[in-house]
Amino acid sequence: MHLFDEATRVTAGDSCWQGRTSEDYWAFVGPFGGATAATVLRALVDHPQRSGDPLSLTVNFCAPIAEGAFDLDVRLVKANRSTQHWCVELTQGGADVATLATAVFAERRPSWSHQPAEFPQAPPFDQIAPYPRIKASWANQYDFRFVEGHPDFGGGAQSEPANAHSKLWIADRKPRKIDMLSLMAMSDAFFGRVFHAKRQLVPFGTVSLTTYFHTDTDELAAEDISRVLAVADAKIFHKSYGDQHGELWSPNGRLLATTTQIAYFKA
Amino acid sequence: MHLFDEATRVTAGDSCWQGRTSEDYWAFVGPFGGATAATVLRALVDHPQRSGDPLSLTVNFCAPIAEGAFDLDVRLVKANRSTQHWCVELTQGGADVATLATAVFAERRPSWSHQPAEFPQAPPFDQIAPYPRIKASWANQYDFRFVEGHPDFGGGAQSEPANAHSKLWIADRKPRKIDMLSLMAMSDAFFGRVFHAKRQLVPFGTVSLTTYFHTDTDELAAEDISRVLAVADAKIFHKSYGDQHGELWSPNGRLLATTTQIAYFKA
Repeated sequence: MHLFDEATRVTAGDSCWQGRTSEDYWAFVGPFGGATAATVLRALVDHPQRSGDPLSLTVNFCAPIAEGAFDLDVRLVKANRSTQHWCVELTQGGADVATLATAVFAERRPSWSHQPAEFPQAPPFDQIAPYPRIKASWANQYDFRFVEGHPDFGGGAQSEPANAHSKLWIADRKPRKIDMLSLMAMSDAFFGRVFHAKRQLVPFGTVSLTTYFHTDTDELAAEDISRVLAVADAKIFHKSYGDQHGELWSPNGRLLATTTQIAYFKA
Repeated sequence: MHLFDEATRVTAGDSCWQGRTSEDYWAFVGPFGGATAATVLRALVDHPQRSGDPLSLTVNFCAPIAEGAFDLDVRLVKANRSTQHWCVELTQGGADVATLATAVFAERRPSWSHQPAEFPQAPPFDQIAPYPRIKASWANQYDFRFVEGHPDFGGGAQSEPANAHSKLWIADRKPRKIDMLSLMAMSDAFFGRVFHAKRQLVPFGTVSLTTYFHTDTDELAAEDISRVLAVADAKIFHKSYGDQHGELWSPNGRLLATTTQIAYFKA
């Protein structure tokens, strides 16, 4: 089993599902948020009442998740003919909610289609050196290949803020076909924008993450890809919070997902 | 009392608050989503347990809201030293959830500050003709002054999709000082991107809306403004759903809020 699938494994319950944090996807003070988000999504995708494809997922990180088991309280809040609205609460040992998520699933019908966003040009994956391994285990599960905005976080204090934009290929280090779960996790796999803008690591934590899916499960499977071309940037850092917006592209030129988040920083 | 304040009025309960839809902010098949979102935000801002400023609000529109009274089940899911996580469910007459929202409030501490986003250039509000009144009452509560992407929805079928980008001034028709509630409502006050791209009106409904606030209440009050410069665009329309991302700017050059949404369309 791929480490990612092991890390995001869930055990079915009625409304209460179980999961467990993974050492392989560990960040500074808790599990990699993208793995948590993907675990939530997996519980929904695998839920017997689920119908349709993931359309949007918002994850609010309320408190750190400790190493070990957690419960997912999964609730279908409202179902219509073609959409479902879900709410998921992650708790540990009956304590306070650590993660609060809402999701929309939809039956996506054929329609007029138009992609005004422009495919970011980039040299092929194979022509770019992989980003080296770092301390946080989660990052080592990915093969990051930076095209623009190469991380340089050791430069010390800068007089001027640097560019917060990044363009990079993201693949699982051990290749795995891209599915909805990988898109969800990869939408949180950018390094903190503040690290890029400040050119240094500072205390940082995502507070709320929203990802929209612009493909359905079958279309994504038909892309048959094991990596995405990803771009991310920030618009503002102010009073301890900064934003991020990003896009995940198929190498074939299809926009697969868009994502945004707001994150705490101390600087 | 300003119509907006009347339309988004709430009556305090313990965990259950009451509101009522407003004829003045009515859209095609229900209340203007921005008014609903602002009503949810008002219940949180006015809540006795609330501390800090709105940081993010996600609103999932699960089902149409009928004309009349509604209940808001307001729940503080988790409170930390400097952040609060809320969940709000809107119901009518004890029926299914019609709107599901999650919000984060935060005590925003002074920090390093940087605004990489560029202020959109625009001629002054007074030099642009207001957009004419239309059938949907909500739109007539606003004074829209289009700088780019002027609405032109009567052109009939186009061979090529048009540009989905818009830049416009947004003010309350009856002037009202911009506060957090107006930012929330205005972040949903763009016309559907699909209307711009198709140059025609088609069945349309926002499914999920997320807005981040990049100012705190005091700073916003100090801006002392009654309008915002707003930009919005879309990246993709596919299989009955399309995205929107937008920015709300103070005329003084400060980025006040960023917003994104995913919407259903039939075309």
